[in-house]
Amino acid sequence: MLLRERLAEAMREGIVTATGLIAHGRGEAYDYMMGERTTPSADEAERVAACHLLEAERPVLCVNGNAAVVAGKEIIELAKALPAKVEVNLFHRSAERMEKVISYMESLGDVEILGRKADAFIEGIASERAKCSSEGIGSADVILVPIEDGDRAQALVAMGKVVIAIDLNPLSRTSRTASVPIVDEASRAVRNITHYVNEFRQADRHVIIENFDKERALRSAVEEIKDFLTTAFDER
Amino acid sequence: MLLRERLAEAMREGIVTATGLIAHGRGEAYDYMMGERTTPSADEAERVAACHLLEAERPVLCVNGNAAVVAGKEIIELAKALPAKVEVNLFHRSAERMEKVISYMESLGDVEILGRKADAFIEGIASERAKCSSEGIGSADVILVPIEDGDRAQALVAMGKVVIAIDLNPLSRTSRTASVPIVDEASRAVRNITHYVNEFRQADRHVIIENFDKERALRSAVEEIKDFLTTAFDER
Repeated sequence: MLLRERLAEAMREGIVTATGLIAHGRGEAYDYMMGERTTPSADEAERVAACHLLEAERPVLCVNGNAAVVAGKEIIELAKALPAKVEVNLFHRSAERMEKVISYMESLGDVEILGRKADAFIEGIASERAKCSSEGIGSADVILVPIEDGDRAQALVAMGKVVIAIDLNPLSRTSRTASVPIVDEASRAVRNITHYVNEFRQADRHVIIENFDKERALRSAVEEIKDFLTTAFDER
Repeated sequence: MLLRERLAEAMREGIVTATGLIAHGRGEAYDYMMGERTTPSADEAERVAACHLLEAERPVLCVNGNAAVVAGKEIIELAKALPAKVEVNLFHRSAERMEKVISYMESLGDVEILGRKADAFIEGIASERAKCSSEGIGSADVILVPIEDGDRAQALVAMGKVVIAIDLNPLSRTSRTASVPIVDEASRAVRNITHYVNEFRQADRHVIIENFDKERALRSAVEEIKDFLTTAFDER
């Protein structure tokens, strides 16, 4: 309930949009259907995500309005732990909203937030939404996109980047096209990735990365929802 | 997409709240998981709902901000077809918002909209949310509540009313406590109820009402979601 109030407040402040609130509601429903917990398949994807981020030369954590409100602090913590760059990248982009979301992220911790300078483009998507920073997304090799739209996830994969997407819908285009789809709530997911980043600093990360089977992980996420529905219905 | 823009506009006008937008998002996700169609179990519940409304002495159709935007026109059509009274009843009640939602409903058609005069109470719930009209909800025998909260649905059932609830989550308290839970999107559901109202004017409605098994209907709704997930995943 507290999070919903924070989102309502962020909407009044212009950080989150009306369609962002609706998207958050969709996430709530999917999360509910997975028992509001990190499922075993999500936990595995989060371990793999930590390995990719540790292996990266230029890791970037992407943030939009919803991600800032829902998991802003956790993203800052992950950026510090790696270290990685953080870049604000909005679906409904305007100079004013960019400034609001960047300032909000800056208020959460001592990490540089990219996004004010848009001197690069994500190839293959419409102009305003394609804008990004050459220092950040433009030159990243591994990118974490919490709560992303399918178009952009697909375009980033097409540019040869490893895309780690956090999306609660295992059937979405984002989940289907990401290199590592994480079907989990964003703040839990990022917190758990940070946990594994600290655990895997000395590990043989290539084995973990190579053993990851994206299709198997997504199928497990779907089965986890089905199992939850069966159990929850019988236990009502 | 058009509906999302209408909701964003309604939010700016004060008809819909931030939490209403989030609730709409939850509905979108459940609807998606049922294939965005009226499932066979929902269709059966809608037939039963039509029979109850035709049998009623004092049927009332309840409307909140979301229902007004999502299914306002359909509710007016159903009110005319029966006829039934329409009453605005808000979770986040204020005199100003009541006036806005009532005026909006009045703009949709020539049907009297109750709610301005709050001279009765729904027993057993907190004061502001309990307010209702003695002419409408207060004395209704059958009440349709699209997109209701669980508390109020339960309180209305406890008052001895037949409660027809439209809620896309088959596991919710509203679905569990309603006399006739309809697991379907509100505008589709109300349109289909109106269709059956016109079809069943001369029918033996008692047989249809008595054959309805609420638990079986909800179990079918859960199975319909599970089947959709399996099929949608394999067909991606």
